[in-house]
Amino acid sequence: MADEFDVIVIGGGPAGENVADRAVRGGLTAAIVEERLAGGECSYWACVPSKALLRPVDLMGEVARVPGLSLGPLDVEAVLARRDEAVSNYSDSGQVGWIEGVPAEFVRGHGRLDGPKRVRVTTEDGGERVLTARQAVVLATGSTAAVPRVPGMVEAEPWTSHEVTAARSVPERLAVLGGGVVACEMAQAMHGLGARQTTVLVRGGGLLARMEPFAGELLADSFAEAGIEVRTRTDAVRIERPERGGKVTVHLSEGPPVEADELLVATGRRPATGDIGLGTIGLPDGKYVEVDDSMRATGVPDGWLYAVGDVNGRALLTHMGKYQARICGDVIAARARGDELPAMRDLADGFGAPQVVFTDPQVCAVGRTEAVAREEGFRVRVVDYELGSVTGAYLLGDGYRGRARAVVDEDRKVLLGVTFVGPGTAELLHGATIAVTAEVPLERLWHAVPSFPTVSEVWLRLLEAYGL
Amino acid sequence: MADEFDVIVIGGGPAGENVADRAVRGGLTAAIVEERLAGGECSYWACVPSKALLRPVDLMGEVARVPGLSLGPLDVEAVLARRDEAVSNYSDSGQVGWIEGVPAEFVRGHGRLDGPKRVRVTTEDGGERVLTARQAVVLATGSTAAVPRVPGMVEAEPWTSHEVTAARSVPERLAVLGGGVVACEMAQAMHGLGARQTTVLVRGGGLLARMEPFAGELLADSFAEAGIEVRTRTDAVRIERPERGGKVTVHLSEGPPVEADELLVATGRRPATGDIGLGTIGLPDGKYVEVDDSMRATGVPDGWLYAVGDVNGRALLTHMGKYQARICGDVIAARARGDELPAMRDLADGFGAPQVVFTDPQVCAVGRTEAVAREEGFRVRVVDYELGSVTGAYLLGDGYRGRARAVVDEDRKVLLGVTFVGPGTAELLHGATIAVTAEVPLERLWHAVPSFPTVSEVWLRLLEAYGL
Repeated sequence: MADEFDVIVIGGGPAGENVADRAVRGGLTAAIVEERLAGGECSYWACVPSKALLRPVDLMGEVARVPGLSLGPLDVEAVLARRDEAVSNYSDSGQVGWIEGVPAEFVRGHGRLDGPKRVRVTTEDGGERVLTARQAVVLATGSTAAVPRVPGMVEAEPWTSHEVTAARSVPERLAVLGGGVVACEMAQAMHGLGARQTTVLVRGGGLLARMEPFAGELLADSFAEAGIEVRTRTDAVRIERPERGGKVTVHLSEGPPVEADELLVATGRRPATGDIGLGTIGLPDGKYVEVDDSMRATGVPDGWLYAVGDVNGRALLTHMGKYQARICGDVIAARARGDELPAMRDLADGFGAPQVVFTDPQVCAVGRTEAVAREEGFRVRVVDYELGSVTGAYLLGDGYRGRARAVVDEDRKVLLGVTFVGPGTAELLHGATIAVTAEVPLERLWHAVPSFPTVSEVWLRLLEAYGL
Repeated sequence: MADEFDVIVIGGGPAGENVADRAVRGGLTAAIVEERLAGGECSYWACVPSKALLRPVDLMGEVARVPGLSLGPLDVEAVLARRDEAVSNYSDSGQVGWIEGVPAEFVRGHGRLDGPKRVRVTTEDGGERVLTARQAVVLATGSTAAVPRVPGMVEAEPWTSHEVTAARSVPERLAVLGGGVVACEMAQAMHGLGARQTTVLVRGGGLLARMEPFAGELLADSFAEAGIEVRTRTDAVRIERPERGGKVTVHLSEGPPVEADELLVATGRRPATGDIGLGTIGLPDGKYVEVDDSMRATGVPDGWLYAVGDVNGRALLTHMGKYQARICGDVIAARARGDELPAMRDLADGFGAPQVVFTDPQVCAVGRTEAVAREEGFRVRVVDYELGSVTGAYLLGDGYRGRARAVVDEDRKVLLGVTFVGPGTAELLHGATIAVTAEVPLERLWHAVPSFPTVSEVWLRLLEAYGL
C-alpha cells in the first residue's frame, strides 16, 4: 500500500513540518497533507511578513531617538518588496523541497480524518486519496481569525491578519478592531508605513490585556505620541461598507463611529478544526483538540491521535507549536519502538510561553504575570525597574522609556515570570526564558553578570532591587 | 578622629563606588578617595562615551541593511553633543552627590597607602589629609593605557582611549595601533563618524585575539567592506610627528609606513598602581594586586587590604569590577561582624567574564573559548551555527551575516562558553551568561523555547545541531 505511512500530519505549517522531521529522524515514515502553502500561516501571513513590515518602522523609531541621525523619505514599495521576498513571493517550492528532503511525502489537498488512523485527502483537481497511518495521525491545522458576528461584518470583507500582512498598499485611514498582539503590531506597522489615521478599538480596558498591565499602558503612551488613537471599552455593533473595498464605517457601543478606508479585525483566533473530520472519530468539530503533555489527544481510544500548535489551544505561538512538534515527533518515534521517552514532555507551556510583541516599545514576557501567579496561589514578590535608568538603555537613545518586572516565587526563590517593555528588548527575553524554565535560583542569577553597558544590566538592577 | 572610617576606598570609579555602597549597606562607614572625577574612567573616557559615539554608527549600519529606509547627512556635532551629555559634560557633581547619598565621604585628592590601614591623601591645593581604616582599605584605582615604548611615541602625544572617546572632532585619517576591543570599537566609531582613511595596525594575526577566531575574522570582513584597512603582523617601530597635533607617520616592522592625522594607541592596559604607596606595605609598585575570591589581597598580614576592578587584573571590564565590588563590600561588612559569608565569592570570573564588543557586527562572548576549554583539559564539543540562517536575523536586514558558537562540556553536558557575532546580538549574551554561570544542563535548555522570530532562535538551532 503506497499510501500507508507511519505518521500522517494534517497541516504543513512550522508545527506540522517539525513533527514530520522529528518522526523521520526517529526512523519513521511520514506524510504531510496541506491544502494551501507548505510553511503555513506563519511563513506567509503572520509572523514573517508582519516582522518584515515592522522592521523598518522599528528602526525609524530608533533613529528618531538618536541625535545626529535623520531619515530620508520612506520607500514603502521597497518595504513591501522586502516583505514579498520574506514570504518567498507566496511560493512554497522551497518549503516543499525542504519537506521532500526530510524525507517526507508532501500531499497537497484538504485532509480530513476518516475514522481511526485514516485520512481522506481531497486534492486540488477534486480527486481523492486515502492515507493510512501505522502509528499516528497528527493534527497541525492551526487557527484562523475569529471574526465577530456583527451586522454588516461579513459583507464588509474586512482585513484579518492574513490580508494586512499581505497588503499591497497602505490605507490612508485604518480602523483596527482588537487590542491584542496582532492588533497592536499591525496598527504600528500600518501607521509607521503611512496610514495617517489609525484607530485601535478595544473592547476591554487596555492593550495587551494578557500581559502585565504596565505593558499595555506603556504601549498606549507610545501610540498616543505617535498619533495612533486608542479607544477602550467600546465594541463594534454594526459595520457599514456600501461599496466593496470602499469607505467603511464602524459603529460602536460607546462613542462616535469610526470612518476608515480599511478595517482590520484582530479579535482573536479559533482552531481550524471545523472541517477536518473530527466527527468521524467522535470528537467535536470546531473545538480545540485537547492533548496531554506528550501532545496525544485525550479521549481517543488506542491513542493514535496527536495535535500540535494552535490547534490544541495551549499557546497560539509559532515557537510553541514547533516546540510541541519536536516533542510530538520524538514521542511518536519512541512509542513506535516501545519506549515512553518520559523526559520528552511539554514543560514549557506549564511555565508560561515566552512572547515578543514587535511594537515600539517592544513587549516581551515569559512565565506568569503577577496576577496569574497570585491566582495560582504562589507566594509572590514583584520587583519593577525603570529601564530608562539603565545606562545601556539610555545610550540607545534620547528619552528611552521602558520597564522590567520580575515575579519571584518567595518560597523557592526562583523567577515565575519576567516582563520587559522597551525598545530593543526582544533579544533580552531569552535569558529570562532560560531562568524561568531552568528555575535558576536568584542567588545563582546574582553571579550571572550582565555586560556593561547593555540593556541587560536591568538584570542586576532587578536583583539589587530585590535585595541581593 | 574625624578621619577614621571602617572602609577607605582609593579610586572612585564604578568599582570603588560599589564597594562603598555595599559596605555602608552592611552597616559600615566609608570614604572614597578620587583624584579625578567621581565615576571613573568608564563614565567619562571609556564605556559610556565610546558607546555614545558608536550608537549612531551602529544604527547607520542597521538602516543600510533595511530596504525602504535611507539616511540624511550625519550631524557629527550632534553626535558629539550627545556624547557630552552622556558624560555629564565631564562634571562629576551628580556622582559626588550619589556618593554622599550612600552616605559615604568623598575625598578629592591623590590617595596613597601609608603603611597598614592608613591612606595619605594629597589634596588639590597641595594639602594633606591622613585617613585611617578600622576594617579595610580597598584599592580601586583602575588601569591606564599601556603605550608601547617606541622611538618618537612620547613626543607624538598619541590618543589613547581617554582622548579618542573625548574627541572634539573626527580626524580625516586615523591610524590605530592595536587589534583589541578599544582599537576595534574606536576604529569603527571614528570611521563611521567620518574618518575617511582608517588603518588598524595589529601585531598579531588578527582582530580580537582573545575571542573565538571567527569573531575577529567576521569583524575584519566587515571592516574591509566598510573601507577600514586592517594590517596584521606588523608593529610600530618609530613614530614621527614633527609638529604637535600635526601629521603623524607610523613606521612599521612590516610594510610601508602609515601617514595619518591622528594616532590612537590601544595596545592594552596597565594597572594604575605605580603611585599608590604599595611599597609602604611591602607590595611591588606598578603591578596588579593579587586577590583571592573574596577580593582580599594575598600576602598582606591581617588581611585588611582588598582590590577590585582593573587593579586586580582579573577581568578588565567595568561590569566585572562592579561585581567584584559588590562581593568585596559585602564580605568586608560580613567579616566586620565576624561572619565569613562564604556564599559571597567571585564565581563569575572563574566561568569566564561576559563581554560585548559594540562593533558592526557586535561580538559577544561569555565563558571559555574552545581553545581555552581544551587547554584546561575539558572534553569539549563545539557547535557552530550561521546566524544568517535564523529567520529572526534575516528579518533584521538584507545580507545579515553572523555566527554563533557553543562550547559544550561533554562530561557534564553544560555550556562552557558561548560566542555570538552579528548585528543586534548584544542583548542575546545575557542568556548565555545565565546558562554558563548556572550550569544549566543542555537537556533543560532544550525546554527554554526562543520566541519566533527573534535572533535568539539561534539557541534552538545550536541545540538541534548538537543533536537534541
